[in-house]
This record gives sequence, C-alpha cells and structure tokens, in this order.
Amino acid sequence: MLGKCITNVRNNVPLVHNITNYVTVNDVANVLLACGGSPIMSDEPDDVEDITTICGGLNINIGTLNKNSIEGMFLAGKKANELGHVVLLDPVGAGASALRTNTAVKLMDEVKFDVIRGNISEIKTLALGSGTTKGVDADVADAVTEDSLDSAVTFVKELAAKTGSIIAITGAIDLVADAERCFVIRNGRPEMGKITGTGCQLSGMMTGFLVANPDNKLEAAAAAVCTMGLAGEIGWSRMQEGDGNSTYRNRIIDAIFNMDEETLDNGAKFEIK
Amino acid sequence: MLGKCITNVRNNVPLVHNITNYVTVNDVANVLLACGGSPIMSDEPDDVEDITTICGGLNINIGTLNKNSIEGMFLAGKKANELGHVVLLDPVGAGASALRTNTAVKLMDEVKFDVIRGNISEIKTLALGSGTTKGVDADVADAVTEDSLDSAVTFVKELAAKTGSIIAITGAIDLVADAERCFVIRNGRPEMGKITGTGCQLSGMMTGFLVANPDNKLEAAAAAVCTMGLAGEIGWSRMQEGDGNSTYRNRIIDAIFNMDEETLDNGAKFEIK
Amino acid sequence: MLGKCITNVRNNVPLVHNITNYVTVNDVANVLLACGGSPIMSDEPDDVEDITTICGGLNINIGTLNKNSIEGMFLAGKKANELGHVVLLDPVGAGASALRTNTAVKLMDEVKFDVIRGNISEIKTLALGSGTTKGVDADVADAVTEDSLDSAVTFVKELAAKTGSIIAITGAIDLVADAERCFVIRNGRPEMGKITGTGCQLSGMMTGFLVANPDNKLEAAAAAVCTMGLAGEIGWSRMQEGDGNSTYRNRIIDAIFNMDEETLDNGAKFEIK
Repeated sequence: MLGKCITNVRNNVPLVHNITNYVTVNDVANVLLACGGSPIMSDEPDDVEDITTICGGLNINIGTLNKNSIEGMFLAGKKANELGHVVLLDPVGAGASALRTNTAVKLMDEVKFDVIRGNISEIKTLALGSGTTKGVDADVADAVTEDSLDSAVTFVKELAAKTGSIIAITGAIDLVADAERCFVIRNGRPEMGKITGTGCQLSGMMTGFLVANPDNKLEAAAAAVCTMGLAGEIGWSRMQEGDGNSTYRNRIIDAIFNMDEETLDNGAKFEIK
Repeated sequence: MLGKCITNVRNNVPLVHNITNYVTVNDVANVLLACGGSPIMSDEPDDVEDITTICGGLNINIGTLNKNSIEGMFLAGKKANELGHVVLLDPVGAGASALRTNTAVKLMDEVKFDVIRGNISEIKTLALGSGTTKGVDADVADAVTEDSLDSAVTFVKELAAKTGSIIAITGAIDLVADAERCFVIRNGRPEMGKITGTGCQLSGMMTGFLVANPDNKLEAAAAAVCTMGLAGEIGWSRMQEGDGNSTYRNRIIDAIFNMDEETLDNGAKFEIK
Repeated sequence: MLGKCITNVRNNVPLVHNITNYVTVNDVANVLLACGGSPIMSDEPDDVEDITTICGGLNINIGTLNKNSIEGMFLAGKKANELGHVVLLDPVGAGASALRTNTAVKLMDEVKFDVIRGNISEIKTLALGSGTTKGVDADVADAVTEDSLDSAVTFVKELAAKTGSIIAITGAIDLVADAERCFVIRNGRPEMGKITGTGCQLSGMMTGFLVANPDNKLEAAAAAVCTMGLAGEIGWSRMQEGDGNSTYRNRIIDAIFNMDEETLDNGAKFEIK
C-alpha cells in the first residue's frame, strides 16, 4: 500500500525547492536524490519565486532562519500556494526562541501548508502557543509513549482539523494524521537521534513524496516516515564494530537509495487509528 | 600528459578562495584537500578582498547566492583580476531564475574568467541569454550525445573564442575547450548524478589545478575533469552490496585523495578535437 | 584523570549553542552528538539571545563571518557572559583578513571567554596584533616543535594570564594552558590536516566538555583535545586500502561516538608543564 508511493517518486522525479538550514542541507539534498527526487536550494527573496515556480514542491525549514531567509520563506510560500504546489513546514526549534515560534505561527497564518512536520515539542508549541522545547530536540516530558498514545492521536487529529494540514509528529512512535485518520508508525531506531538532521532529511523527502502522490497525500506522508524509519533499521543492521553516528548517517541514506516498493511494503510497521 | 597536472597540485598546494553555496561547501573543501590544495571560504564583502589576495585562485559558485554574497562575488572577482589570479565561474542554476541568469551574465561582463564550468543547460543559457534549465540539473533535451557531439564541439569552441574563457561543459560526455582545441572526455559514471554537488566539487578542484599549472590551463582544466570522472569510476568499483549514494560520495573523494600521476594518465579517457 | 570528563559529558548532555561557519557545521553537530552533547545552531541577531539562554555553552567560530552573524556573535557572547555560561572563541583565519582579526580582537575586548582555541598562527595574531596566517591553516614557520616547545609553553601561559582565558593551541603538538599549568598533548595524526574542520569540530566538542565539567575547565579542555587526537589515531587504524580523507572523517567521528572513559584514560598522551 505505502510501497507504491516510493515507486511514484522514482518515476516522477519531483523537483523540490528547499529553504532549509545550513547545518543539514547537504544531507537533505542527498536524501532527496536517494529517494528519486531532485533538490534545489534557494533562500534569497529575489530568487525564491522563480525557483519555486519551476519546482513541484516547497520545503520550508526554519532551522537557521535569518531576516533575509524569513522574507524568502513568505514569498516562496505564497507563490507556491498560488501555483497549487505542495508546501511543507518544518518548525525546527519552535518554542526555543520567540523568533522561531513567531515565524512559524505567522507562516501558518499566511501560507497554507499541506504538511507540518516536527517533533512533539515543536508541534505542541504551534498548537498551544507555548511549549517546553529544549533546544531542537523534543523534551522527554512531551514524548509520545504507548501510555499517552490515545490522547496524542486525538491531539494530532484535532490539530489537523484546525489547521487543515496533515500533521506529522516524529519520535519513538510517529504519528501522521489528517482530521480523520492517524497513521501510528513504529519504524526507526533510537540511535537515529544521535545523527544531526534526520528530521530535516525526512521533511525534504516527504515533500517529494507528496509531489509524486498528489491524490494520496496522507499515505505519501506516512510512506516517507516509514521509509526513513525502515532505512534507519536497515542502516543499523549493516553497522560494523567500531562504526558510529557518522557511518550510520551514510548507511541510512544508502538504505533510502536502495529502498524499493517491496522492501517498503514488507518493512513498514504501522496501524491506522 | 594530464597526470603531471595533479603532481603539480600536490607540490604547489594551491590556496583557493571559494565563494560557494552552503549545500555542497563541505565536500568542496574536502575535495580540494584530497587533490592536494587548500580551501578557504569567505563571501562577506568586507572580507573577500583580503582573503582573495592571499590565495592563488578564486572559485565563484552562484548556487545559493544572496544580495550580500553577490556583492562579495563582484568585489572578489575584480580584486582577483587585478592580481592576475585564476578565476572560475560555476553558474549553478543559470536559466532557472532571473537573478541567477542575470548575476552570471553580469559577472561575465565585469570579471575576466579563466574558466566557466557548468552543465550544458547553464552554459547554453549564458551563451544564448536564455535556456531550458530544469532546476540545477541539465535538461535532457540539451544533453551532449555522440550524435550531437560535433555541433557541441563547435558551439563550445565558439563560446570560448567569444568569451576568452576556457569553457567546460560536464555531463555524460564532458567538453573542455578554448577557441582552438576541445578535450572530449569520457570518464565518469551516470550514478554520479545521484550525489549532490559533484559539479561544485569539480569547480573547486579545477581552480586549484589551474593555479598549480599556470602555463597549461586548458590541460589543467581537462585533467581536473578526468580526475573527477576517474574517481567516480574507481569509487564505484569499491562499492559493496547495500551501499548507496552517501557512501559513493565518500568513495569518490577517497579516490581523489589516492589519485596519482600514473593512475590519472592510465585512466584518463579523452580525445582532442 | 581526563577520562572522567567524557563520562560527565555523556551524563550531562550539555546543550551547546554554535555560531559557526557553514563549511564544517554539519560535522560540528555530529561530533557534539557523538561525544554525548546536543548541538543547536543560530546566528541571527534576533534569535541568538533566546537560544543561548536555553543552552549551557556558546561556541563562537568566525570561519564564514558576515555582518549579520558578527552582530549575533556579540549579542550572544554578552548574554552568555551575563548568564555565566561557558563561552569559547575559535578565531578561524585571524591574521588572514582585517575583518577576521578585528572581529576576534573586539570579541576578546567585549566578551569574557573561558577558552580561546586556534592554530598557532591565529593565536599569535591575537597575542601580537599581527601574524603570518596563510589562509586558515597554520603557517609552518610558526609550528610548535620539540625545539620550540619551552618557549611556546611560556608564550601560551603568559597569554592565558593576560586574557584570563584558557588558551588551546592545536597542531602536531597541542598546548592547553591557563596561567599556571600547560597540558602538552601528543595525540593525533598528521593526516587529520587533510580533513576540513577538525579544528572546528574540536571547538564545538570542547565547549560541551567545559559545560559538563564546570569545576575542572582546564582538564576538560585538555580532555577534549585528547579525545579528538585519540579518535584520529583510532580512526586511522581502521582505514582500509583505497580509503581517503572522506572516509577518515567518518571514522574519526565514529571513534568519538565509541569513546569511553577507559579508552580515553589509556590513550591520552600528555604531560603537564
């Protein structure tokens, strides 16, 4: 069911415009290439409207925002909306600073997002107007666990209804929901948290998945999450003695490069609530 | 013949100033170190003239240009010209946006480039003032093939004559020409297109090759292209089951690190037209 | 003795705010994760005070400084001082341009640094107001050797006394000193100079070590230097035929990921002068 989504990416070769942080941007580009898409990066206000016009989707990540790139985010987002392109928001560090929280909230006001993808602390910040984000990693107290799962599913569906966006919360258990259905996904490994930017990589890839699967956006978003998590499992299985997080980063991207429909369908671990 | 060029790089340790995009900049730095050069990055207008002064060459890549870095490109380019340094232009995404096309064209007006290196779509854009660039990758319709080779060779020589720059067009077949001679190079592998920034890496390395081979700039540019392509072949031959584009990136840089004169002379596949 | 310091990092998970160059920023983030810390990057003046407030330490690296990020460095540095946080300065390229030298000197005037870490040319520039920095790598004429060791130790202690900062000079022999004691460290391998950013990585990691070892800052700084150098040795021992600087980069970060107290205590090679 979800496997078909990656085949569509490989056949469609979606061109994705990324306004993203300079920390993880190289990995975002290589992950987009690994899954079958094509990346382009541009954040200059005078450049972004032309670039987003030739793309199929726009990935806005506020990780190392500055005054100039923030202006670019709004211009690109509005242009992408005008053209009916897929637009995704990754609110990195929302809750960690006023500028990040306010930029993310204002983007949600002025741009229509197909998906908002973040960790639980970031998403709670956007939902509640406050949060307990500790840096750019999720706060433990907020974690989605088996115990808090039902209330988290309710929360994410309600936020999806309120915003009109698919909401994707990633962590030990991942939730991908619209107002009616929530994919609860149990792929991935805890060691992925020791690599910078697996969330950013997922946001770039997810944008490509939505572009290539316009009629099944919720499935596409869930398929991207399963692809990332499954790649984390496959990559880990290939680790040798002495390997660490740098090699693991390479192995995960390699596993995405080699991911096919059958592997994804066999390895995806999800239920729909 | 070309092998000598990399020996000169290793002996000369050329210091290269790069004004380049933040997507692939780390790989550009590591490739310059791998081939025997030394990289320094600076794009701030108040900083670039001092930095370019202490270097032997300047690599201008417009991949993630912004208003501030564009100003830096012009200041650095003019200073490098004044000092007689090698200057290279990599017009990433020319044709994809008005800002990129106009910046590249204006740079060509105001700065004298030793080499302009891009894919066929970008170079056609600069030659014709228009193009069909699809994002930052070359458009299939523009590709240099065995069938279109003769007309492509004529085109590239004419552009070299008109601009006074060496023109390097990279793709399945690479062309490196001045007004009179065109190196037609058949090294490389198609999988290199699945790694972000092999073109950017080549531009950085090529700048170093020209600095270290001031009396044979055309050969130096061709040698850099052969080094990159051959490293792509060697890197691919070392791939294991389960490896993908992230590991391939490492293997290519590793192969450049280990490249010597004999390997390059034996592996370079070119004819001169 | 030093091994305990890394255990404290793993237990404390120090959150480190990095204002650092876009060349090596991804490796800085992965090294901080590898040693047990948590990285966050922000350079926008409107963002840095909030971000530094939630962190335990601040790493200021002037590698690709621009007007906007320079303003961010001063704001963040002063806020971190106000809060009593650890602050480190990495004066990349001081001596290579007036902007870099002046920015570093002015930062030292207005911000109190716990540590200043650079190569010998950069540190001499800061001490003497002039220097012979060749690009971002140390000048050979300045190198700390067995012959010049005693005078170098005197120099670094005097600079530590004058500035009130721990001074860390890294090279073939590393020196880490306050006014009274100087750790002379002989870990590491010359091939580490063929990887971009091992210095930047060390600065990020060292900030985390100081945050997690507030009562033993000199030992913490020395432990970070030993960790990096020892990881360079372990990483090199795992290299295979055909590997080069890109794989070596991964192996070093992997070795940091796997570093424990016992390995560090057994492998650290230092004397105190």
